[in-house]
Amino acid sequence: MLRALALNCTLKPSPAESSGDLMARQVLDALAPYDVEGEIVRVVDFDVKPGVEADMGDGDEWPGIRDKIMAAEILVFTTPTWMGHMSSVAQRVLERLDAELSATDDEGRPVLAGKVAVVAVLGNEDGAHAIIADTYQALGDVGFSIPSQGGVYWNGEAMHTTDYKDLPETPEKVASTTQTLARHAAHLAKVLRDQPYPAP
Amino acid sequence: MLRALALNCTLKPSPAESSGDLMARQVLDALAPYDVEGEIVRVVDFDVKPGVEADMGDGDEWPGIRDKIMAAEILVFTTPTWMGHMSSVAQRVLERLDAELSATDDEGRPVLAGKVAVVAVLGNEDGAHAIIADTYQALGDVGFSIPSQGGVYWNGEAMHTTDYKDLPETPEKVASTTQTLARHAAHLAKVLRDQPYPAP
Amino acid sequence: MLRALALNCTLKPSPAESSGDLMARQVLDALAPYDVEGEIVRVVDFDVKPGVEADMGDGDEWPGIRDKIMAAEILVFTTPTWMGHMSSVAQRVLERLDAELSATDDEGRPVLAGKVAVVAVLGNEDGAHAIIADTYQALGDVGFSIPSQGGVYWNGEAMHTTDYKDLPETPEKVASTTQTLARHAAHLAKVLRDQPYPAP
Amino acid sequence: MLRALALNCTLKPSPAESSGDLMARQVLDALAPYDVEGEIVRVVDFDVKPGVEADMGDGDEWPGIRDKIMAAEILVFTTPTWMGHMSSVAQRVLERLDAELSATDDEGRPVLAGKVAVVAVLGNEDGAHAIIADTYQALGDVGFSIPSQGGVYWNGEAMHTTDYKDLPETPEKVASTTQTLARHAAHLAKVLRDQPYPAP
Repeated sequence: MLRALALNCTLKPSPAESSGDLMARQVLDALAPYDVEGEIVRVVDFDVKPGVEADMGDGDEWPGIRDKIMAAEILVFTTPTWMGHMSSVAQRVLERLDAELSATDDEGRPVLAGKVAVVAVLGNEDGAHAIIADTYQALGDVGFSIPSQGGVYWNGEAMHTTDYKDLPETPEKVASTTQTLARHAAHLAKVLRDQPYPAP
Repeated sequence: MLRALALNCTLKPSPAESSGDLMARQVLDALAPYDVEGEIVRVVDFDVKPGVEADMGDGDEWPGIRDKIMAAEILVFTTPTWMGHMSSVAQRVLERLDAELSATDDEGRPVLAGKVAVVAVLGNEDGAHAIIADTYQALGDVGFSIPSQGGVYWNGEAMHTTDYKDLPETPEKVASTTQTLARHAAHLAKVLRDQPYPAP
Repeated sequence: MLRALALNCTLKPSPAESSGDLMARQVLDALAPYDVEGEIVRVVDFDVKPGVEADMGDGDEWPGIRDKIMAAEILVFTTPTWMGHMSSVAQRVLERLDAELSATDDEGRPVLAGKVAVVAVLGNEDGAHAIIADTYQALGDVGFSIPSQGGVYWNGEAMHTTDYKDLPETPEKVASTTQTLARHAAHLAKVLRDQPYPAP
Repeated sequence: MLRALALNCTLKPSPAESSGDLMARQVLDALAPYDVEGEIVRVVDFDVKPGVEADMGDGDEWPGIRDKIMAAEILVFTTPTWMGHMSSVAQRVLERLDAELSATDDEGRPVLAGKVAVVAVLGNEDGAHAIIADTYQALGDVGFSIPSQGGVYWNGEAMHTTDYKDLPETPEKVASTTQTLARHAAHLAKVLRDQPYPAP
């Protein structure tokens, strides 16, 4: 059994509906047949303090989220698109993961090495490629591995305002991309669990 | 007389020292001879709620910052570099400015048209060009004009950890770039105040 | 009278039809009522050598394009979207403009200061915000000024393959954005021609 | 035995010295102890036609480079930084790889799935994080997998002009990052060769 953690970096606190929840759920559902068990955390519901330490003290709720990341083999990083960029909540998560950049396990491996990250991006319009780029780089830097075709996204035509959650049905391209992503992510997580990166 | 507002988007609340304060101050000092009066606001000291409305209600302190932006002709957007990106605080500011994207004045002009934006980026290392890119695009989209060579930045050599505020002196290249930026920003703000963009 | 030069950075040599030509033409048409006369150059039709000098010698056809840029007050930088990025032809143009980064006129102003740049991006899908970002930054760095809302773009829904030139009609949002862009670009070019940035 | 292909996307044709050659060589040297045999190809020495097909005909020399990519398990994508972006030669390579985006093997897997990509970026100054981002995304989209900490880069302090090849010695941080990258890339390539991604 593998565990996946989906972080939904929407700006909207619960219980507002979120397109990110829908897409994160679809990714988790696609992972389930590969014996992956998952959970969604809506980051904005927690008080994640600004900073770049693993624990910023004083009411900081990041440590609880960090524990869930550490317990999972797969991270499903989910963010909306605002001004063509990932959300401030998503960037806040990356800043907090910056604390792990130089952290190593007992054998000298990056603490996040061996974990797999995939990215899901939602937007009314344009921005997903750039967000996938920025998140792959940041998640790769801190130690995650990125599977072949590990990104999925949906956005509408230029300057449109439709939400993913309001589409009459899931577009076929999104559904098939999600399937590929899940198949690749589960495989990569399994082989890296069974054959970890060697220590230096 | 023109007014400049410098937003320092550091992750560190006051009274911690901030390289952003130093560079924002240097930009304001360079603007002063052109009859520009300025102020620095450290955004993280305020409770800027997540969202994309001008007022998110319930303790939201963005409206006070927004008033200052509206009262100034020049915005000095200052951000640190984290994971190669602008800070989560900087992206939060852009998300809140998203509310102005379609807002127009009585004559149909974008409400922010006529204002000038410049960008100052600090980092231990690499990221400034990408951050200047992302901020120019977002600030331009909501209506700011960008002067010729309107960005200034400092970062150290790859994978280094020095802070701008700890340099023995201001690098000559940063100082001369700041002079050019200020000369251009003040000129552009003045001509656009005296000859506003025409209404549709 | 002002002059605009539209560089179409499509990968397809003439006489292939190009969505970039269509959008560049629409921008030039929108500029015409403001007494702006324009021309489109399809860069891929010329042998623009790799390098970062104003003249790379030996059959290099960049100098002819450079002359046209220098003779115009407005640059309409037009690029398709490939892999979410500007085209290799567009990046080649920016590399050649890099030669102007430190060039100054007799009075010490950047040689490109006073010129205005706008950006038009075409794509089957996602990428325009990031391309507008990267081009604003590069064009601003070398000396162009960017007017309020100086970008226009079209792309289809995520993972779709329609070309702009094959749409049954120009989307209303694209048409109105083009109008705003042209109104702002012409105004900014005129005021900067009449009141140039001051010399240092 | 595994094979690595390093593509050096410098703008300078042979026999000019290239910092990219130096860093690509260092990556190949770091891979060698893991039983990886490598080769460097300087792309600008070949006539790679603009376009997004696997073979653009008429003197196009991409097919020869493509064959080498297909024969290798590891791609070392090496690019200089110009205007904060990857080179036009690097983007040209990505455009040509776009042809593989939907290509699948006999069992329905992406043709590039199972191959591993790492990225090496050189620059006088700032840009590497953004280039690593853009290349990870594009290479991941077409099917490569990205190992944990699969990027290495060097650039000097902001607005400086030193070349990597002219440094008195290889910075320790670059050397240790190269070691990690090679250890991870070789491991990932081996496990994915031995246990390929499953077919749909």
